[in-house]
Amino acid sequence: MRITGFASTPEPPYYAVIFTTQRTPGDHGYREMAERMKHLAAQQAGFLGIESVRDEAGFGITVSYWESLEAIAAWKAHAEHQAAQASGKKIWYAHFKLRVAKVERG
Amino acid sequence: MRITGFASTPEPPYYAVIFTTQRTPGDHGYREMAERMKHLAAQQAGFLGIESVRDEAGFGITVSYWESLEAIAAWKAHAEHQAAQASGKKIWYAHFKLRVAKVERG
Repeated sequence: MRITGFASTPEPPYYAVIFTTQRTPGDHGYREMAERMKHLAAQQAGFLGIESVRDEAGFGITVSYWESLEAIAAWKAHAEHQAAQASGKKIWYAHFKLRVAKVERG
Repeated sequence: MRITGFASTPEPPYYAVIFTTQRTPGDHGYREMAERMKHLAAQQAGFLGIESVRDEAGFGITVSYWESLEAIAAWKAHAEHQAAQASGKKIWYAHFKLRVAKVERG
């Protein structure tokens, strides 16, 4: 029974970035990028954890957890992440929605 | 390309309930209950939408969106939902984590 997919987050308050996506067909470098981004995100200041799941139809939800809005802004502005965001819009995602939320209970 | 899995939420602020789960093996009435709960949730006052995905390993994230903490509390206290919560803890989920967050951007 896998429980490794769960993020070990501290007592609230902290922040969640809820990233809902529909993948386009084919890989086109997606898997490698996704692994790289998870690895890179985990190295950022203020990163608390990540939970991510995608079904066979390519629909996915990734929630990353952060100490502060500043940490989220810094990660958004990270050069390599910016390149991934651009490719995401152009190539990997048919549709996506990103929400930033403050975790109050959990 | 499916985009029906996305919730059409209003301008923030609103609330998100992030429910991360690992299913136990076997169905044991889970699928029927899950459909029923989605149907029932959608009828509650203050419900805004739901996004849900589970992978082949049984790891899932469901995010439901609500107008207010009061709407979330009322749904949590709903009798049929309470029965489902009890069965979830006993039968359907090997592990779960529930977070309540206020969406500030999205």
